[in-house]
Amino acid sequence: MADENPIRIRRAFHTVVSPTNSLLKLYRSALREGATREGWMAIEGPVIVAEALREDLAAGNAGYARSASRIRSVLVASSATEQFRDLLEQLPEDAELAQAPDAVFRSVAATVNPQGIAALVEVQPPEFVSILRQREPLLLIGCGVQDPGNLGTMMRSAEAFGASALATLKSTVSPLNPKAVRASAGAAFRLPMYAGFEEGPLFTELDHAGVRTIAADPYAPAAITACDLRGPLAILTGNEAGGLEPELSRRAESRLRIPMQPGINSINAATAAAIFLYEAARQRGLK
Amino acid sequence: MADENPIRIRRAFHTVVSPTNSLLKLYRSALREGATREGWMAIEGPVIVAEALREDLAAGNAGYARSASRIRSVLVASSATEQFRDLLEQLPEDAELAQAPDAVFRSVAATVNPQGIAALVEVQPPEFVSILRQREPLLLIGCGVQDPGNLGTMMRSAEAFGASALATLKSTVSPLNPKAVRASAGAAFRLPMYAGFEEGPLFTELDHAGVRTIAADPYAPAAITACDLRGPLAILTGNEAGGLEPELSRRAESRLRIPMQPGINSINAATAAAIFLYEAARQRGLK
Repeated sequence: MADENPIRIRRAFHTVVSPTNSLLKLYRSALREGATREGWMAIEGPVIVAEALREDLAAGNAGYARSASRIRSVLVASSATEQFRDLLEQLPEDAELAQAPDAVFRSVAATVNPQGIAALVEVQPPEFVSILRQREPLLLIGCGVQDPGNLGTMMRSAEAFGASALATLKSTVSPLNPKAVRASAGAAFRLPMYAGFEEGPLFTELDHAGVRTIAADPYAPAAITACDLRGPLAILTGNEAGGLEPELSRRAESRLRIPMQPGINSINAATAAAIFLYEAARQRGLK
Repeated sequence: MADENPIRIRRAFHTVVSPTNSLLKLYRSALREGATREGWMAIEGPVIVAEALREDLAAGNAGYARSASRIRSVLVASSATEQFRDLLEQLPEDAELAQAPDAVFRSVAATVNPQGIAALVEVQPPEFVSILRQREPLLLIGCGVQDPGNLGTMMRSAEAFGASALATLKSTVSPLNPKAVRASAGAAFRLPMYAGFEEGPLFTELDHAGVRTIAADPYAPAAITACDLRGPLAILTGNEAGGLEPELSRRAESRLRIPMQPGINSINAATAAAIFLYEAARQRGLK
């Protein structure tokens, strides 16, 4: 099939033209959902595909437990093939490479101004239990976070401040939501993420592993500045409008607030999560 | 004119019907720009108008130097008048109140799904020099921030962590941009803001007032955790993609970074500003 391709690329790739082709159907739904049914992340645009490739090539090089990201498939618009030549040439051998006429690509893309490249990435986190067994795990638990941009920003902060993982309750938007992935600026490929927990089983696992749960609660008497945030810790962070549900907050071992100017009791949800993570990292000696 | 009005409201209000009416023209452009030519903030939607009203009624009650917000004009869609009755009845006596047929209101609104109410608010900060003369001023300086949502989130964090003011260089998006105001969750009405500085004069004023300038720089050798952030302080924060311009960074008295996991050197711009402000507040003893 490579012979049919006017652009010379080391890798063979096949051309799909029918909009009802099964690969195109897969891309079309996955780019809207954020993932395929088997959980492969669907991404669109050269910046993020290049980021995924960087992670794929760097696989296993992080000095700490991180997800392994493998590019499984790349789809390019015919007219964009030459432009993305360098990137395409670096793809791993086992990644499927397909090309579609521009109009067909546009019909598959989820963005208003498609940039001619999309990919499916298998992101494999370590087993959750191995995260809990780390010496001093620090987890962020999304409880009802609705705004994917906020969740992605939390993912980025969690990675930056050395969190071990993100876990989310069912009520939280998917960490694979395309807007969350974009806002994470690459953290989605590396930070171990565990989505869709039921509340009961998650608390049970954390309890068994000896991980202390703290609830971010603006009305808590104690402030994070006055508390020890070292040791195994899970920070429960709520949704943008209402914060944590009272029942969840009660279930946590402690409730802590961020110190704020009198009369003010709320900041942006992603900002609040970052402050908790920063304070924990600071106390743990991150330099 | 109140007699012509089918809805009984204590306040008289006039009805404007022609889309070329000068008040409507004023609203139309101001809702898009974020402000009128004289700098009155243009806002849209019941949540934020109610917030502006709360600030207007609370004027001067804050225990610290804050902006004074006065509602100067409110425009409602005819069919929404009854719904906003409570709010309209609380308007200050000197606020102009106008009503427009729904279709005309829609033509004026800047949002896709207009909710039938808009307002013009005069937000008057204290004189800049009085901010600089505070005992221990803490300023956030936006240098090239482009995303209005990020700037608004920074405004919200600045208020929460007790910053004295926000100042912005010309290269930064307007703090009165509607998206910035919305993301600020009311802080735009209270936090003293000074927009559109030229770099030279701003540095001169800060220097004269003895305010130390620090640049947020991910490549700085020193981390904020290891530095004293008490005393008069201005934090320079850069744009989303490139951070601070090198020249601006050099001009600051010190360059400081946020401690992060090895290999990571960036977080969301609004998150970074919040961490600097939080750390300064923590060191100053905010509880």
